[in-house]
Amino acid sequence: MAATKIGVFDSGFGGIDVLRNIVHVLPQYDYVYLGDSARAPYGTRSQDIIYEFTRQAVEYLFKECDFVILACNTASTVALRRIQQELIPQKYPDKKVLGVLIPAVEEALSLTRGTIGLIATEATVASNAFPIQFEKTALQQGCAVPTVVQKATPLLVPIVEASDKHDEATLLIVRDYLQPVIEAGIDTLVLGCTHYGLLEKQIRAVVGPNIKIVSGARVVPEKLAAYLHRHPEIEKKLSRGGTVRFLTTDLTDRFKTLSSVFFGKEIHPEKVTLQ
Amino acid sequence: MAATKIGVFDSGFGGIDVLRNIVHVLPQYDYVYLGDSARAPYGTRSQDIIYEFTRQAVEYLFKECDFVILACNTASTVALRRIQQELIPQKYPDKKVLGVLIPAVEEALSLTRGTIGLIATEATVASNAFPIQFEKTALQQGCAVPTVVQKATPLLVPIVEASDKHDEATLLIVRDYLQPVIEAGIDTLVLGCTHYGLLEKQIRAVVGPNIKIVSGARVVPEKLAAYLHRHPEIEKKLSRGGTVRFLTTDLTDRFKTLSSVFFGKEIHPEKVTLQ
Repeated sequence: MAATKIGVFDSGFGGIDVLRNIVHVLPQYDYVYLGDSARAPYGTRSQDIIYEFTRQAVEYLFKECDFVILACNTASTVALRRIQQELIPQKYPDKKVLGVLIPAVEEALSLTRGTIGLIATEATVASNAFPIQFEKTALQQGCAVPTVVQKATPLLVPIVEASDKHDEATLLIVRDYLQPVIEAGIDTLVLGCTHYGLLEKQIRAVVGPNIKIVSGARVVPEKLAAYLHRHPEIEKKLSRGGTVRFLTTDLTDRFKTLSSVFFGKEIHPEKVTLQ
Repeated sequence: MAATKIGVFDSGFGGIDVLRNIVHVLPQYDYVYLGDSARAPYGTRSQDIIYEFTRQAVEYLFKECDFVILACNTASTVALRRIQQELIPQKYPDKKVLGVLIPAVEEALSLTRGTIGLIATEATVASNAFPIQFEKTALQQGCAVPTVVQKATPLLVPIVEASDKHDEATLLIVRDYLQPVIEAGIDTLVLGCTHYGLLEKQIRAVVGPNIKIVSGARVVPEKLAAYLHRHPEIEKKLSRGGTVRFLTTDLTDRFKTLSSVFFGKEIHPEKVTLQ
């Protein structure tokens, strides 16, 4: 069997932050990043459209990759189950797709004393995927099912992706969103969108020092390393060139600039078309 | 020749506000509205992608309409010229597409004493289409070419489309954007995106009572009526049933709710696929 790269998908830039962390922990493999910048953000779209766009991206990555990570919470919570249960058994039985939901859930469960806050896109909150996964993982681990206080925070992705900064207004908006979640008595807050890690300073300023913050971008790489350790049949298929290739559906100047900022060094994305 | 409907295109909801005003002034015709909600907003995308998406939408509307209005400033400023100069002569010599740029430019020229502010999406500002059109129209009318102070305001569309309200932060962001434009000494401000009419109260609060505000959504219907009066060869082809049909590329609950709010009465959009 031919060696395969690791595919990493996000609707836009946010997943590049996850990728940077993965490459830092696992630099030996070859990666292909695909950002659907022509159609981002996904978080306000319907479940049908999010599935359709994610499926197109995953099938594109399957041309080079047998192993794909959805580094986007919206795609992970809305589309992953259907990809695993329909697309893969029907068309790609040798391929594997993982999301970023379970790593964050496992981490939050290990930290909480019982009440977890979740901020995420409207589609992720509407899917109810986080509360369902918290219950499932808690039962598997034989621990108490936590209370999950969800809050959709639709302006945070535009704020992170905007080319201008509005410090005072950003802090006000973060406070508007988090105040009711804090008042519900949470001890742990999950950042349920890969973009939100870039607002962690503001989020920390609002929640104070005592609430633990779980950021998927930080948790995913260790969980991925552990997963590959448990699955040598996947690990041994991975090619080891230490390369990273960047693909995007819209080659804007902003993608070039922001993706380099997010990745931490200059990158040269290529444009592709999904359909 | 068969009677034709009037097509109205926008990347998302904003154009419905324009459509409502058009239908109010010209209720006798039949309209088809198409919103590309699966891929909105356009204002941060590249010129190539904006052209490609707009072309797909226009060709879809051409199935029922010989006359299409781009009720989206980003599409009007970035894609209209190429549609008029390439697509129509090559494939649709009997069709007509108009944008919302010229009506706003004519209105602002009639009001200004010399310095005009323009707030718009990043793509519209980068296209430089407004300053170019101001110069062209001023020279045609034999009046002085105004100074145009442009400001990209990328957070305003997400703020209008968000399902939640952040009054204090919104006012701060509007002030952040407008302060340097006001300080440049403008006497007239063009709202260069169909969404911004929905923030006119906040914009007025920031600019004060003396700066004139030009909103495309308000200006387009009268200019369209005048255009049809000057072009009876187009007007006589229009079908007269007083109907409005709504098409969208993503049928979210939010599209149903917001589009009804924007149109002023309940509507039932149908889902279509563009490619």
